[in-house]
Amino acid sequence: MELKSPAMFIGVHGEGIISFGSGQPDLPPPKEVCSVVPQQKAFKYGLIQGNENLRHELSKQEQFKGTDQDNFVITNGASEAIDLVLRSFGSGKVLLHAPYYYSYPPVVKAAGMKPVYTQTLINSPSNPTGRIQDVNTLKEIEKLTTDLGIVLISDEVYKDLIYERQNYMLSGPHVVTVNSFSKTFAMCGLRVGYLYSNDKSIVNEVIELKTHTSMNTNILAQDMAYEALKAPHTYVEKQHKIWQERRDLIYEGLCDLGLELWKPEGAFYVFPKVKNPKKMVWDLYKKHKVITYLGEWFGDSERIRLSYALDKAEIEEGLKRIGKYLGQ
Amino acid sequence: MELKSPAMFIGVHGEGIISFGSGQPDLPPPKEVCSVVPQQKAFKYGLIQGNENLRHELSKQEQFKGTDQDNFVITNGASEAIDLVLRSFGSGKVLLHAPYYYSYPPVVKAAGMKPVYTQTLINSPSNPTGRIQDVNTLKEIEKLTTDLGIVLISDEVYKDLIYERQNYMLSGPHVVTVNSFSKTFAMCGLRVGYLYSNDKSIVNEVIELKTHTSMNTNILAQDMAYEALKAPHTYVEKQHKIWQERRDLIYEGLCDLGLELWKPEGAFYVFPKVKNPKKMVWDLYKKHKVITYLGEWFGDSERIRLSYALDKAEIEEGLKRIGKYLGQ
Repeated sequence: MELKSPAMFIGVHGEGIISFGSGQPDLPPPKEVCSVVPQQKAFKYGLIQGNENLRHELSKQEQFKGTDQDNFVITNGASEAIDLVLRSFGSGKVLLHAPYYYSYPPVVKAAGMKPVYTQTLINSPSNPTGRIQDVNTLKEIEKLTTDLGIVLISDEVYKDLIYERQNYMLSGPHVVTVNSFSKTFAMCGLRVGYLYSNDKSIVNEVIELKTHTSMNTNILAQDMAYEALKAPHTYVEKQHKIWQERRDLIYEGLCDLGLELWKPEGAFYVFPKVKNPKKMVWDLYKKHKVITYLGEWFGDSERIRLSYALDKAEIEEGLKRIGKYLGQ
Repeated sequence: MELKSPAMFIGVHGEGIISFGSGQPDLPPPKEVCSVVPQQKAFKYGLIQGNENLRHELSKQEQFKGTDQDNFVITNGASEAIDLVLRSFGSGKVLLHAPYYYSYPPVVKAAGMKPVYTQTLINSPSNPTGRIQDVNTLKEIEKLTTDLGIVLISDEVYKDLIYERQNYMLSGPHVVTVNSFSKTFAMCGLRVGYLYSNDKSIVNEVIELKTHTSMNTNILAQDMAYEALKAPHTYVEKQHKIWQERRDLIYEGLCDLGLELWKPEGAFYVFPKVKNPKKMVWDLYKKHKVITYLGEWFGDSERIRLSYALDKAEIEEGLKRIGKYLGQ
C-alpha cells in the first residue's frame, strides 16, 4: 500500500472507476471556448506575460475593475502561478493554514522556503473543506498584512463556485491574487491560470523567471480562455444549482453513513473524518474502484477528501460502494 | 538602454519589425496537427506524466527504439523539462559550456544549483552557434559521464535540424534527453516538450514535482503533438533545403558586411562577432526595427545572435538594415 501523493490518481480513468479524486468539473466548457481553433494556422511563441487581449479582458472583469493589464501574468494553471511567485522570493517563511491544498507545502519547500502552519488563516472557498471564510475575517487579514508589509497570496480558484454569497476578493499593496479558468469554465486539462498584483516588482520577477522555466502559456489555450470570458453570466449561474444538488446528495449520503463532516458552502469537496484513512483510501481504490484522496496530503490525518464533480448517478454509485466498504 | 534579458523581445511583433530574435520556425506546422481539435469536447486533467498515446508513440520513434513509455515525461516545452530535472536535484554543480542557451544559467541558479563554465562541453546542434559536435567527442563524453556516474542533460531540441548528418543521440544510465516539438514541427507557442531517461528515479522525481508546480501539460497540445508524429518524413526533409538556403543567405550576407562568424551546420542561428554589441542590439531595435539578441545573454560578450527563421525577403531586408547601421 503506497499512498505517496495525489500524483498516482491524477488523470486516472478506467473501466468502472468512480473518481472522487481530483477536483475538476465534469460539466461542459462554454461553447465559445472551441470557436477559435479551426482558424489557427501558426503557433509561434507568445508574450511570456500572456496574450494582451486576454490580460486586457481580465482587467475589465467586475472584480478587477480599474486595474491594468500589465499587472497580470498568464500561467500554466494556478499551480504555476503559485510556484512562480514563491520562487521569485526564494527564501523566507510561508504561513499556511491547515488543512491546505496538497500542493502548498511541496511548492513552498521546492522554492527554498519554510512552511509554517496555522489553523486560522485563509483559503476561501477552501480546498479540501469546501468552507468559505467570513468577510470580516478576510478584511482583518487584509489590514494586518498591509500594516505589516507582508505578501499575501490569495488562491481564489473557486471564486465562482460559492453557493452562499459573492466572492470577496482580497486586495492590498502586496496581495497576489491567483486564479484559474479550470474550475469556472471546466478547462482543467488546458492549464490556464493567472496572477494579479498591485506590486509590480513581484509581477516583473515572475515574468523574468517564467522566461526561463516554461516561456509563454500555451497560446491556443489562452485564446480559448479569452473566448470563455465571453460566455454569458448564466453559464456560471446555472452551475450553482447543479453543484448545490450534488453537494446535498453527497453531504446527506455521507452523514447517513455515519461520517462527520462540514457542509460545503463553495468549491466541490467534502472532507469527512473516517477511521483508518489510509486503509480506506487504499481499499476503496483496489477493492471497490473508488478514488478518494488521503486527508494527510491536505494536513489532516483523520480525514479523506472526496470531490463531488460527478453526475448524480455516479455519486450515488460511489456512495453505495463506500457504504459497502463501511460494511453497511 | 536596458537590455536585461530576452524576455523583452519574446513574442514581440509589430508594424515593420524584423525579428532575428527568438528562434522559432516560420514554416507551417504539419496539417495533421489541427485534425484533433474540432472533436474535442471535455478538457479534464491529464496524467501528470503525459498522455499515454503520445509517450507510447515517442517510445517507438527511431532514436528511442526499445525504450519504455514509462521513462518519458511530457512537459511545457523543453524549458520546463530542464527546469524540472534541475529542481529534482536541488543542489550541486552544473557544468555548462559557453556560449550557452540563455536560459541555462538562470534555471540552474533558480534550482538552487551552481553553474560552472567550460568551453568544451556539448550542446549539439548548438544554440547560439549553430554548430554540431563531432560524434567521437560525443562518445567520449558518454563514456566519461557513465564512468563517473555523472548525470548528463542533453538538450537535443534541434536534433531534426542538422543539415550535415543525422543527429547522434547521447545515451547512458544517467543521461536525460530533453526534446521538443517546437522546432521540428513549428509548434513553439503550444509548448510541448519532453524528457527521457533510463534513470527511473529522475523520471519519478520529475513527475512528483510537476504534480505540484504545473500539473499535466496542456492535453490539447499533447494530442496535437501526437498527430504531428504522424507527419511524413518528407515534412522534415523538405525543411532542410529551406534552412540551408537561408543559412547560406545570412552567412554570406554577414560575411559581406565584414563580420566574423561560424558557418552553422544545424539549428537556425548565426552568432557573429561585432563591435559594441550592446549599442548595436539597442540601435538596431530602436532605429532600424530589427530585433537581435545580445551575445552576453549566451555567455559571449563580443557577439550578437540572429535567428534566421524568416523568409528570404525578410532576411534580405534585415541584412540591408544591418548594413545601414554599420554605415555601408
